[in-house]
Amino acid sequence: MQEDNKTAVTVIGAGSWGTALAMVLADNGHEVRLWSHNENQVNEINQFHTNQKYLPEIKLPELIVSYASLNDALIGVENIVLAVPTKAIREVLGKIRAVQKAPLTITHVSKGIEPNSLLRISEIIKEEMPKELLKDVVVLSGPSHAEEVSLRHPTTVTVSSENMEAAERIQDLFINQNFRVYTNSDVIGVEIGGALKNIIALAAGITDGLGYGDNAKAALMTRGLAEIARLGTKMGANPLTFSGLAGIGDLIVTCTSVHSRNWKAGNLLGKGKTLDEVLDNMGMVVEGVRTTKAAHQLAQTFDVQMPITSVLYNVLFNGKNPKDAVDVLMSRGRTHEMEDLVNVLEEKSLEE
Amino acid sequence: MQEDNKTAVTVIGAGSWGTALAMVLADNGHEVRLWSHNENQVNEINQFHTNQKYLPEIKLPELIVSYASLNDALIGVENIVLAVPTKAIREVLGKIRAVQKAPLTITHVSKGIEPNSLLRISEIIKEEMPKELLKDVVVLSGPSHAEEVSLRHPTTVTVSSENMEAAERIQDLFINQNFRVYTNSDVIGVEIGGALKNIIALAAGITDGLGYGDNAKAALMTRGLAEIARLGTKMGANPLTFSGLAGIGDLIVTCTSVHSRNWKAGNLLGKGKTLDEVLDNMGMVVEGVRTTKAAHQLAQTFDVQMPITSVLYNVLFNGKNPKDAVDVLMSRGRTHEMEDLVNVLEEKSLEE
Repeated sequence: MQEDNKTAVTVIGAGSWGTALAMVLADNGHEVRLWSHNENQVNEINQFHTNQKYLPEIKLPELIVSYASLNDALIGVENIVLAVPTKAIREVLGKIRAVQKAPLTITHVSKGIEPNSLLRISEIIKEEMPKELLKDVVVLSGPSHAEEVSLRHPTTVTVSSENMEAAERIQDLFINQNFRVYTNSDVIGVEIGGALKNIIALAAGITDGLGYGDNAKAALMTRGLAEIARLGTKMGANPLTFSGLAGIGDLIVTCTSVHSRNWKAGNLLGKGKTLDEVLDNMGMVVEGVRTTKAAHQLAQTFDVQMPITSVLYNVLFNGKNPKDAVDVLMSRGRTHEMEDLVNVLEEKSLEE
Repeated sequence: MQEDNKTAVTVIGAGSWGTALAMVLADNGHEVRLWSHNENQVNEINQFHTNQKYLPEIKLPELIVSYASLNDALIGVENIVLAVPTKAIREVLGKIRAVQKAPLTITHVSKGIEPNSLLRISEIIKEEMPKELLKDVVVLSGPSHAEEVSLRHPTTVTVSSENMEAAERIQDLFINQNFRVYTNSDVIGVEIGGALKNIIALAAGITDGLGYGDNAKAALMTRGLAEIARLGTKMGANPLTFSGLAGIGDLIVTCTSVHSRNWKAGNLLGKGKTLDEVLDNMGMVVEGVRTTKAAHQLAQTFDVQMPITSVLYNVLFNGKNPKDAVDVLMSRGRTHEMEDLVNVLEEKSLEE
């Protein structure tokens, strides 16, 4: 990259993904301000250039400076990367709004849908930020475990925005030899794909926890992708997006990798733990649980059959036995596959 | 199932897949004649109800009787299941042709494309069998490791035929609680998806062998599916098939499961073994190697860019270093994702 492309970027949230993305930006020569609400973490990053809780054993580039003061972290910055759990987004945006004076391009990297409001993250950002403080909203998504990105393993992601010029600016900030960034103009598809794959990862963890094997998991993932695409398309997404990095790519990595929290949580459910036990055990946010609730509501709002989401909802919130739930999915009637893939109306609901 | 649906079915080939499918048919109450060219294997199956070489530790149902005589195995039978490596199909069909008198419905379960002729398996069957001996050709495909089917783990597959009534008859023969069978009228898509996923599994094994991680593998699988779909669609397939069980479903199971031979072969290549060493080491047929040659020819014939196939072809047959090959794939220019997914013409060839 050329020197004149260097800029200051503020990354909000020093979890594993925020920190890994800060590393990519620093590798590209940008000044990175990594904001954390935790002062001990700020001190650790600035003194030792490590973030042991989230990326153990990783040495952070010295271009990353951590800030506890949001005001200081934002001074003179035009680009921020929002890397906080979906549950914390409104609160963090409120804090930014309170100190920020100039318009920002906000790139969010969270994967979820807000229950009840049923808003995507970019919609929440537009709701929370006054127009004069918001230049553009960009989403970055794709098959990208933070641990591997921090090890500079080859990774590909997609950036999307209603303003493609903004998406290309963010592409330029992040792209390098190890971290390939593609653009996609379908914001809805990229956000829905990223959010809903966590539901399928929970379900895949359950089938693995039950010992059902790889054939069953592949079937579940195939049908899971079909139901994500059915909902997404009804919400206005381009169906092709679900065949891309933010769709099947992210679904594959989340359902099959040992790094995936949602898979791990499902796996514990499949082994007989209750949801409360699982969430206590994890100690990290399991986005898929909240997203299942939101997707269940979306399926009703948009009148789309989502059998896997529906069964998982009943496992998580209505005490249904995971084994019975998977058996229901396997014992559906003789079907023509294309009906299952495309025809929403002819499917029978599995909800009782 | 009702008693009057019971029939005799001959399964040609007692490898792991032929034997597992024979078990499904026997579980459904059908008389199964399992033909093998190996007399020791025939005796083992009939005396001990085991097939230790291909499905160790599995007890076969007594409804499976093994035959060394093709003539005896075929007497009075209307349905045969062809479960031999693609390389052996013409020879076996020649033997069947020599003894068979009445028309057969042939269900094939092989996954490959014939190099040079570039024929799909159903086309080879139609070429080898005279019209008066061939009632229908059906293909059965999907994410289905034989080992798991033999353990009666939940499995889903697709059957396809130019004659949907024939596909439904085969669906009825195989379907049960553990083995769900969907129909799909897109024969080309089902055969191309099943054959070409082995190429991507070889490539996925290579990236794993190189230690590149799950992000890279998911990216490879996503782009692999896109190139399979590009070729398949040009050959006349329905693009939706590649989002189904015979497309992404089979691709997932083959690229991520410890049972996959093609993945294993790629993994050894990634670790630095030569193709000859790998093939010696495996001792079983690695369909993907032959299929890579055929797909490389198909890409030229149909003028479709297939960067992964092309790179893999150079690794397998032109001594290209696997690491250099993967690096070429990762260092392509800044791209809009949709171009990559749909626009064949604007892609630059990676072949030098």
